[in-house]
Amino acid sequence: MKPIVCSVQVDAPAPGLHDNTADLDRLQQVLTQALDDGRSIGIPYPCMTAVARNFRAAKFAGWALLNNLEQGWELVDFFEESPPVIAAMALDLGTTHLEATLLNLHNGEILSQGNLENAQIAYGADILSRIHHATTKRRQQKPLAADFKDPGLDELQGVIITAINDLTILLAGQAEVSPKEIRALSVSGNTTMAHLFLGLDPYHICREPYIPLFNRAQSIRGEQLQLVISPMAPVWIMPSVGSYFGGDLISGILASGMAHSEETRMLIDVGTNAEVVLGNSEWLIACAGAAGPALEGGVAKMGMRAGPGAIEFVSIDPDTYELEYRTIGDVAPKGICGSGLIDLVAALYLTRMIDIRGKFRDPDTEQDPLRAAFMREHLVRRDDGLCFVLTGISATGLEAEVVLAQIDLDAMIRSKAAMYAILTTLMNQVGLEFSDLKEIVVAGAFGRHINPQNAMTLGMLPDLPISVYRAIGNSSLHGAEQVLLDDDARQECEKIVSSITYLELNVNQEFMIRFSGARFIPHTDPSLFPSIPQFSSMEE
Amino acid sequence: MKPIVCSVQVDAPAPGLHDNTADLDRLQQVLTQALDDGRSIGIPYPCMTAVARNFRAAKFAGWALLNNLEQGWELVDFFEESPPVIAAMALDLGTTHLEATLLNLHNGEILSQGNLENAQIAYGADILSRIHHATTKRRQQKPLAADFKDPGLDELQGVIITAINDLTILLAGQAEVSPKEIRALSVSGNTTMAHLFLGLDPYHICREPYIPLFNRAQSIRGEQLQLVISPMAPVWIMPSVGSYFGGDLISGILASGMAHSEETRMLIDVGTNAEVVLGNSEWLIACAGAAGPALEGGVAKMGMRAGPGAIEFVSIDPDTYELEYRTIGDVAPKGICGSGLIDLVAALYLTRMIDIRGKFRDPDTEQDPLRAAFMREHLVRRDDGLCFVLTGISATGLEAEVVLAQIDLDAMIRSKAAMYAILTTLMNQVGLEFSDLKEIVVAGAFGRHINPQNAMTLGMLPDLPISVYRAIGNSSLHGAEQVLLDDDARQECEKIVSSITYLELNVNQEFMIRFSGARFIPHTDPSLFPSIPQFSSMEE
Repeated sequence: MKPIVCSVQVDAPAPGLHDNTADLDRLQQVLTQALDDGRSIGIPYPCMTAVARNFRAAKFAGWALLNNLEQGWELVDFFEESPPVIAAMALDLGTTHLEATLLNLHNGEILSQGNLENAQIAYGADILSRIHHATTKRRQQKPLAADFKDPGLDELQGVIITAINDLTILLAGQAEVSPKEIRALSVSGNTTMAHLFLGLDPYHICREPYIPLFNRAQSIRGEQLQLVISPMAPVWIMPSVGSYFGGDLISGILASGMAHSEETRMLIDVGTNAEVVLGNSEWLIACAGAAGPALEGGVAKMGMRAGPGAIEFVSIDPDTYELEYRTIGDVAPKGICGSGLIDLVAALYLTRMIDIRGKFRDPDTEQDPLRAAFMREHLVRRDDGLCFVLTGISATGLEAEVVLAQIDLDAMIRSKAAMYAILTTLMNQVGLEFSDLKEIVVAGAFGRHINPQNAMTLGMLPDLPISVYRAIGNSSLHGAEQVLLDDDARQECEKIVSSITYLELNVNQEFMIRFSGARFIPHTDPSLFPSIPQFSSMEE
Repeated sequence: MKPIVCSVQVDAPAPGLHDNTADLDRLQQVLTQALDDGRSIGIPYPCMTAVARNFRAAKFAGWALLNNLEQGWELVDFFEESPPVIAAMALDLGTTHLEATLLNLHNGEILSQGNLENAQIAYGADILSRIHHATTKRRQQKPLAADFKDPGLDELQGVIITAINDLTILLAGQAEVSPKEIRALSVSGNTTMAHLFLGLDPYHICREPYIPLFNRAQSIRGEQLQLVISPMAPVWIMPSVGSYFGGDLISGILASGMAHSEETRMLIDVGTNAEVVLGNSEWLIACAGAAGPALEGGVAKMGMRAGPGAIEFVSIDPDTYELEYRTIGDVAPKGICGSGLIDLVAALYLTRMIDIRGKFRDPDTEQDPLRAAFMREHLVRRDDGLCFVLTGISATGLEAEVVLAQIDLDAMIRSKAAMYAILTTLMNQVGLEFSDLKEIVVAGAFGRHINPQNAMTLGMLPDLPISVYRAIGNSSLHGAEQVLLDDDARQECEKIVSSITYLELNVNQEFMIRFSGARFIPHTDPSLFPSIPQFSSMEE
């Protein structure tokens, strides 16, 4: 493990008339011996006074604190006693949420964790409206003056820096360290968020040919961004590949481990888009598509992100028609998140309340008395047609009514079809079968709560042994944690960026054909899903 | 020539849907090809916006401005047109004076030059009193608080930074560039001045065992020191060897060229101390001794530094006894500088008005009528004995009386003896004869004005063909100019620092013996000075 900041013990000979080496030269000499890796050891100017003073006060023996940077070592502090904690913060800089971990770089121990809404939401819920806000003045000024700075960009940067500082103070408080003792920060976010965080012009990101200002930022320090962490703390930004392939996905690939294994894996990360990566240590191919909205609270009327009050689990017993559900945090339901929706639609299919096209069947024509009773109770006819009432407003005074309308069902079918089409198009691109995959890693809140069996039932995910699926949670955050803890991880990010191929689906004919084929449950070609119960249209 | 900042022409392909590399990545890629040296190219965070904007405005073709740093290239600006001037400032940070050159790094052309008194003089004329001032509070506080900053040190740093900024603005104005367009600064000064410039505690410099805080400072930028030059300008500090062997002398060694030649040379730099270095590309040995004061205006009553009004040349015709002198700037005389003093004392010796011990002969016992007349005119008896009146207050109403008293003569003899003893001790240390020297390089104002023949007559410098002597002026400044213009010079400084040996004369018995032997004109052993007229004591 080669963390981004580490302490190194030294014991230098005391100076004398016959050894009048300067204090800092003396320290650099013993450190060169101790590190023994041939890399340069610099001392940033602002650190010279404190390092020299502490080194002398400690009688030339103690622990040096070093930044491990790409260009070499950097000596930033000195302690008489070994520091018990070297704190560093990993940050997932999401469009809607910030999530962070405070780590002890000595041993990888998690000191505290937390999250916060991205305060930029007040300026626009999505990336496009934020770019719009950040470039208001810019759009009126061409050519740009040499010293032009868009006040909108300044504002968005200020808001996100303040939010990060708030989260930092929260996490530092929980861990009982001072914010100034946080010695490094890693940031994983999409390309636009990275630009807004650094106050760099995002204007061309959303304009053909979609060129970011940067993909890779180097040697940034806490003080340059007005962060409350140590002024000398390296701020490590996850490199991105392009405007629509951000550092958050690179971070996810890193966290999945797929890029350092000979066996081929697939990573699925569902956010606003579904981002899918396929590959191994030899090659990586990625694509993204609009499969997410229905699964991330964006489409279904009662849909919501996975959070307290979201129905994340639903089951209907196919024999007794007993309905069960569970909310995150076990509180009264406020809506339904992606995993709950998948569970619900799979259950509706397995209990044959919807047909293979995802349409509600007519309760009035139902033959089975038990099912007919259940349908009469839950399927109600409203202005926009039949809809399924999962929880009634009457159940408790506090509960919201959580209802799935036909329009929501249709959106869900499109999402699941898009997802499967993305996966199959990608597999076909490299000439592999799903059975060749060692693992399918499902990231994000979606991955944490989803029941892969139900997603397979819907034909959203391929019909494979359940053990092939692995949920890894917030992979963007986990990748950011890894780069703090190990220099090899930082180098792997560079390797991922340089080896990845991006498959553009918007102009892909094959994708459109596969999408159409996937708009049935589980699929128009049932042989692709041998383990899933098939109900022919004829039978119904 | 590899200057510390240079411009490199690039012409990058325009971005498109099939080449959506980020703007800064695109620029780094073409620069990597253009530079083709395998070194990394970083972009400092504060430069990202301007570089990207200018690169786009120039339609991806133009000139990149790069800092050539030890740890790699640093991309700091971009221009559509080739910048005609890349200005950089070399500074000799002397204890009493600042002297600076503004160079065009394209071709080494001197844009402007100037000097200024070191404003720190108000806080003490010498290094020791400045260290005292800088550490007033520190001396009362032990142990030091972690955030201790001595207000005296702050004050001295502020004063020198202001003076440097004043000089910068002056030179920039003369060269018609903006101070912000000065892209680099090199600083050559003694160890204490370097500490005061950087605001680093000089407390231990003057306390046994005389340990500086640093000898080598890296990667400092204009903005970190509140300099008016470009915020991103590298500030390159000449490395020092120890508390009493500063970067100014390393700079002089560099400027002399002695460290990259197989032939052995000697460098003599007379300031408050006489600093002498001997060596070649294989080895270097240095020492310092108190030979200077009489030669730098420090002792002789009418002595002064070489500057306007200083008598820098004196001759007395040994046949006609015609006296001539010349002042710097051809203005009325205010005093006499080192070279004038050497001329005068050599003339007094050659006209036999002083004996071989440097004592005035009694005019009343003089036999030669011409000489007796001249002596009666110029040698007057005052309270402190005989003295030589070089210019009388009566000559013009404006002129000061410039007089050499016996006490001044005695000091001069001690200085010249010390100088010769230093040179011979050093030569003996390495087992070489003066005739082995390819060149004796004489630096500083002293070297610029001195007549080596007269210095040889006095036995101050060895009796060698006059062509062996070469004056190089302000070698500290010239070295500072060289490091701006060529990376090899910067690397040579490191080599000089690591290869130099320091000979301590204060505890050297041999030096004391040689000093005694050299207290006659030209020497107790006349065979050492075969070309110099010898007058035995017997003869007189």
